[in-house]
Amino acid sequence: MNEPSSNTLTLALTLIEACATVAFALSGLIAAARKKLDAVGVCVVAGLAAFGGGTLRDVLLDRRPFFWVEHASWLWALLALCIAAMAFMRARHFAPTERAMQWPDAVGLGLFTAGGTQVAMQAGMPAIVAVLMGVVTAVFGGVLRDIVCNEIPSAFSDHRPYAVCSFFGGWILVGAQALQAPAWVGLVVAIAVAAGLRVLALASGYTLPQWSTGDTADR
Amino acid sequence: MNEPSSNTLTLALTLIEACATVAFALSGLIAAARKKLDAVGVCVVAGLAAFGGGTLRDVLLDRRPFFWVEHASWLWALLALCIAAMAFMRARHFAPTERAMQWPDAVGLGLFTAGGTQVAMQAGMPAIVAVLMGVVTAVFGGVLRDIVCNEIPSAFSDHRPYAVCSFFGGWILVGAQALQAPAWVGLVVAIAVAAGLRVLALASGYTLPQWSTGDTADR
Amino acid sequence: MNEPSSNTLTLALTLIEACATVAFALSGLIAAARKKLDAVGVCVVAGLAAFGGGTLRDVLLDRRPFFWVEHASWLWALLALCIAAMAFMRARHFAPTERAMQWPDAVGLGLFTAGGTQVAMQAGMPAIVAVLMGVVTAVFGGVLRDIVCNEIPSAFSDHRPYAVCSFFGGWILVGAQALQAPAWVGLVVAIAVAAGLRVLALASGYTLPQWSTGDTADR
Repeated sequence: MNEPSSNTLTLALTLIEACATVAFALSGLIAAARKKLDAVGVCVVAGLAAFGGGTLRDVLLDRRPFFWVEHASWLWALLALCIAAMAFMRARHFAPTERAMQWPDAVGLGLFTAGGTQVAMQAGMPAIVAVLMGVVTAVFGGVLRDIVCNEIPSAFSDHRPYAVCSFFGGWILVGAQALQAPAWVGLVVAIAVAAGLRVLALASGYTLPQWSTGDTADR
Repeated sequence: MNEPSSNTLTLALTLIEACATVAFALSGLIAAARKKLDAVGVCVVAGLAAFGGGTLRDVLLDRRPFFWVEHASWLWALLALCIAAMAFMRARHFAPTERAMQWPDAVGLGLFTAGGTQVAMQAGMPAIVAVLMGVVTAVFGGVLRDIVCNEIPSAFSDHRPYAVCSFFGGWILVGAQALQAPAWVGLVVAIAVAAGLRVLALASGYTLPQWSTGDTADR
Repeated sequence: MNEPSSNTLTLALTLIEACATVAFALSGLIAAARKKLDAVGVCVVAGLAAFGGGTLRDVLLDRRPFFWVEHASWLWALLALCIAAMAFMRARHFAPTERAMQWPDAVGLGLFTAGGTQVAMQAGMPAIVAVLMGVVTAVFGGVLRDIVCNEIPSAFSDHRPYAVCSFFGGWILVGAQALQAPAWVGLVVAIAVAAGLRVLALASGYTLPQWSTGDTADR
């Protein structure tokens, strides 16, 4: 009775992917705008940020159809979102800031981590691989976004925890399953932990250690 | 009688991919030469420009064998093309210009759009996904070329229509099939529309809109 | 009697991939350190350098499970290696140099070339494709490493033979099989040729030709 049926879980996963997709598309939109890409670039970078991580996960897991093939209407929704955002921003003279990217990013991080790890566990992957797939789902949309924008991916270089939050969130989900907790409990806690850690990290200004080379070892 | 047999269509698609492959390899050659890459870089960038889009499409569609595995002689042809081009250009002191890339690019754009969309429709993809696969086939060879050359992909940032021409060409093919036109008619018209729009766009100097941030809103 | 059993060959291939993986992870570690990436970036770049080429080969060959899924303990080993290296380097004030990357790179080049070509031959690929897959296995880990580090891949631009050594090593393996030599002989000779050519090339200072444009034709 505590355990939702497989159908409910599938629906929950679809909803999770949908919300995270919008959150990440917004972060892609803002990144493309800051690089002054053209309309095509805005749509592609938003699309990569939104669908790139999940698509890479599915390619690695050899899983078909992709989210955006099964739910092709999402491609239309993304296109509409991009056009609407471009028109709206043109009217409002809105200058997107790095700060504005942080909130949708944190929410998407939690949602994609939980969704990606769950999918990999259902595919029978070992725990470390399932967690890694959650990280790929959550982080590589942004990585592809940054590579196309010709920048070192911020997830690897800005010294603020990002993939690490996703990594911990994934282990929560794996742990919840090992403890035979209801699936939805694991999902909710994993989402909250990953997103919460990210928000905490940003609020506290904590930075990750880096490789100390000679000239920075006394840092 | 109007409808060529499945074999003829397969042959036509193979020919289309072959012509587009040469056109894109040339654009890759020129891009690598402008970046002064070494002989390996010239071959790889030419190969990515030529086969990258179609290969990415096939990975996404989970379709095997790739064009260049089924027709492995094309890899030899590409190698010969690169060596010949390097020897010829060395003798002629030819300085490749951005302008010289535009014509093979426009032809390849039309051919790959039609081929990629057709392949995705045959794989039973929804219309928007089929069109997107045509765009991926046509555009992502150049995107991979630019990423390896460490530049923001020109398809996303130069404000001249490129992917958009491919997008319209793909819809022509989808529309032709919906109207039950003979397959070769759809292919020919789609190729002509995509390549023609690209030539028109370059000739007219039309530029795509960009995201207006505060400082550029009065543009 | 000369021919090891299929099991022995599988074990040899696994050992080859393991050694090459460590060699390439070290090259990734050093590259990430030189770019001053954070701890996550160090792990990801080391992981891409180590597993990226083989994973790309397996995606192209549609081969599952990946090395790092079947042997998931390697992911833990990589993580431990990265953490240990970061702690050790922090203590020793070690400034990694480009020169320090060359030796693990040459060894990994030979090992991955042989492993990748062998896997593709077992999958029934044509000779040129099998050799290309060996090159992909050996070279594209480093290419992905450089793309994430936002540099033009050194394999394509530093004019020192790298992919070319892998290319020749791959043909040695294909030739050995055509001559019906024992499998382990082909593997050993191919590894030695690819790694040896690389060391020779570095020692002799030989540079690859580049595309001669007008201003460099008199070079």
